[in-house]
Amino acid sequence: MLNQRRRFWTGLVLLMGFALDGLAQELVIAERDLQRAEALRDAAISGTRAYDWVERLTTEVGPRLAGSDAERRAREWAINLAVELNLPPARIETFTLPGWRRGEERAQIVGDFAQPLAITALGGSVATPGEGIEAELAYFDTLRQLERMPEGSLAGKIAFVSHAMQKTQDGSSYGYFNDARTRGAAVAASKGAVALLIRSIGTDSHRFPHTGNMRYVEGVAEIPAAAVANPDADQIQRLSQRGKPIRVALYMTPERVDSVESGNVIIDLIGSEFPEEYVVIGAHLDSWDLGTGAIDDGAGVAISMETLRLIHASGLRPRRTIRLILWGAEEVGLVGGKAYLRNYADVLRQHIAATESDFGAGRIWKMTTRVAPEAEPLMAHINNLIEPLGIARGEGDVASAGPDLSPMIAKGMPGFRFVQDGSDYFDLHHTADDTLDKITPSDLDQNVAAFLVFTWLASQSDLDDWGWLDATGD
Amino acid sequence: MLNQRRRFWTGLVLLMGFALDGLAQELVIAERDLQRAEALRDAAISGTRAYDWVERLTTEVGPRLAGSDAERRAREWAINLAVELNLPPARIETFTLPGWRRGEERAQIVGDFAQPLAITALGGSVATPGEGIEAELAYFDTLRQLERMPEGSLAGKIAFVSHAMQKTQDGSSYGYFNDARTRGAAVAASKGAVALLIRSIGTDSHRFPHTGNMRYVEGVAEIPAAAVANPDADQIQRLSQRGKPIRVALYMTPERVDSVESGNVIIDLIGSEFPEEYVVIGAHLDSWDLGTGAIDDGAGVAISMETLRLIHASGLRPRRTIRLILWGAEEVGLVGGKAYLRNYADVLRQHIAATESDFGAGRIWKMTTRVAPEAEPLMAHINNLIEPLGIARGEGDVASAGPDLSPMIAKGMPGFRFVQDGSDYFDLHHTADDTLDKITPSDLDQNVAAFLVFTWLASQSDLDDWGWLDATGD
Repeated sequence: MLNQRRRFWTGLVLLMGFALDGLAQELVIAERDLQRAEALRDAAISGTRAYDWVERLTTEVGPRLAGSDAERRAREWAINLAVELNLPPARIETFTLPGWRRGEERAQIVGDFAQPLAITALGGSVATPGEGIEAELAYFDTLRQLERMPEGSLAGKIAFVSHAMQKTQDGSSYGYFNDARTRGAAVAASKGAVALLIRSIGTDSHRFPHTGNMRYVEGVAEIPAAAVANPDADQIQRLSQRGKPIRVALYMTPERVDSVESGNVIIDLIGSEFPEEYVVIGAHLDSWDLGTGAIDDGAGVAISMETLRLIHASGLRPRRTIRLILWGAEEVGLVGGKAYLRNYADVLRQHIAATESDFGAGRIWKMTTRVAPEAEPLMAHINNLIEPLGIARGEGDVASAGPDLSPMIAKGMPGFRFVQDGSDYFDLHHTADDTLDKITPSDLDQNVAAFLVFTWLASQSDLDDWGWLDATGD
Repeated sequence: MLNQRRRFWTGLVLLMGFALDGLAQELVIAERDLQRAEALRDAAISGTRAYDWVERLTTEVGPRLAGSDAERRAREWAINLAVELNLPPARIETFTLPGWRRGEERAQIVGDFAQPLAITALGGSVATPGEGIEAELAYFDTLRQLERMPEGSLAGKIAFVSHAMQKTQDGSSYGYFNDARTRGAAVAASKGAVALLIRSIGTDSHRFPHTGNMRYVEGVAEIPAAAVANPDADQIQRLSQRGKPIRVALYMTPERVDSVESGNVIIDLIGSEFPEEYVVIGAHLDSWDLGTGAIDDGAGVAISMETLRLIHASGLRPRRTIRLILWGAEEVGLVGGKAYLRNYADVLRQHIAATESDFGAGRIWKMTTRVAPEAEPLMAHINNLIEPLGIARGEGDVASAGPDLSPMIAKGMPGFRFVQDGSDYFDLHHTADDTLDKITPSDLDQNVAAFLVFTWLASQSDLDDWGWLDATGD
């Protein structure tokens, strides 16, 4: 089956090669590297140690909020693991950022139908004043409904946005729905509201509120913002349908801290031929504070760390440098990605290909790219080797490459991504329930197999420009 | 299909009638009552209002801990609902009990692998002293292992029992595993432990600790006792396997209150022929404080309330009195059941048949009985009418009738129970996640259909002794 497919693809690639005006196949990738990638893939499918790394990270470190002592412990953990695995030494590139930490938090419906609500502060939210806020709820089905309200119309009220996120396999609904989380407080404050509650940006029906970053807008009052677990949002919705006023008492004490330290952990497998050309893989090391960051993003750390380990352990030496980056402070605004861009601005064009694993622990079902036509023969080789893993080539997709890489993508870097099945990702995302027990080891192995193919072919191929765009107007 | 089955059963019952030495079929149940039961059943299957009642109870009252103000509101809610539904008036039979209420509660692993643990105090537990306890954990796979330890061997330590409850369809594993919850603290204290932590008596893998009642033993130190969510128990287990000491900080502030009030809510549909003979249905009105008591036992309240309503609304008048009891303070030691026994000791023998719905919102799959041979013809009629609902006759089972009825069962009352599918019941049981969204309305309808058959046939049958046992030695 495999061989038959490869013959088909090799033929197609040859045809494409001719179509691409004489680009010879041997310019793309050597046959022995295809064989090596295939062997690495097959070894991974028969079992990797990826699960061990996420087991250790979640057990020995656990929650690791950006800028916290636990995130520092996670960096040390990575350094020690590199030593234990005889990898080249890991280095830390530190940076600072404004800190934030959660305090106490509670809310309840008061009055005739009194009962507690399961809530959690959104990341970056201010505290409630004094003994907390007790106010009437103003109910909105969507953020857009709230936006249409006249200025001042919510004076003294708590705005509640009930819009329920829907499941998608590729996670594409996240951007659409989490607008309420990121912008909701500023919109509500501009209408006079004293606080914002939102239905959790999550697709489960458990009493876990989903945290996540939010932003204030300069010139608009900073009001406390929290997410309500889905069953509790249902409760508010049912009371709202009864047509009676709903009063809510909200108390939360998160704190901002002026400046905290975080960092990216970097391990380079130095290239034998082009040591200053980089193929980047990675995941973010920080997590939200409620769970232990197993699927977000311990799984990604495990997948990319194991990819590096298996290439290193195979004794193969890559032509280009394979760079593993465990990004710091992703959750609070891609701070690690932005720091990397500052540090490596001069050599950005030497980043040949990059991808990140940051969408849970599910199997990869799709590969998406944003590359130049010249890169297509290599993409076809990658596709050829991973399609036996059940991975289809996305049609007409633009790869995001991964959140931490987005500052580089914005500078014109070509995009490549393996899309995991995220149907259940937002059941757990940013909740206390993001823990190790949700991960199936063999699913991680499939991810590692695909990463090995990408990483090895990208590092060995003759192709040194996958389609960098000119960063104009910047 | 139905008619065919009935003909078969009618024949069988006739045969059994002869076998039972001339017990004539007409002595058991009139044909028109079989037809009425069938019609009630079919109407229920096409849709009932049961879901509405649990929607209201969970939305308008929510958590209703035994002896709390919320439990009092639940009794008022039931009184008002009876008025709204034009049922005969409901009455409250109050009683008092020692009170208990939850306070703050938190725990964390301290030291190298510091991280928080999701815990909750067991019902009835004392608080931790002062600023809390910090101590080394002594790990035990099972309660039996802990029991084998020498006296004093756990001095200064926190005992942890890791025994993981397994799923069963009929819930029979609950009694086996929850020994650690009810007796664990006394056993641990007798070995010198300063606190007890147990893996939650629950079958889910979410970060919800499961509360539930525990008991101290006179003459043994009263130490704080809490349950750890399953993923956190896994965490402790993994750390334990690493062979390093585990230190835990535990802080909880539950309080005992001398005496609080609770009560049973009773509604009687007075019998036309035998008003002082009782057919009892019901469920418990109280719940644990963490969730909103949807499956435990709002569902049972809804099922039994709707059964009564549908009989009343049909215009039929039962021969015997149909008594709906919404039991108070079940969770903290079957206090409502015991109070009922005290109040009705003189007329206990007039309780012809009784059952309770207290095993969630799943479909009934089995009917179990503990009745005399003389009752078999009637059991066959009930079975005949409910088997189209997918309900089998249990073989060799002894019915428990329901927890609140157990004091009466202990006095010799015959047993009858519909067993619901509880495969997932202990995923939610006694957690914050026991909320309305977990209930499927049509499953409640199936329960109501079966309850209607039991209730109507029991109230109409000529059989007035299902097999009372002599309460000897009591």
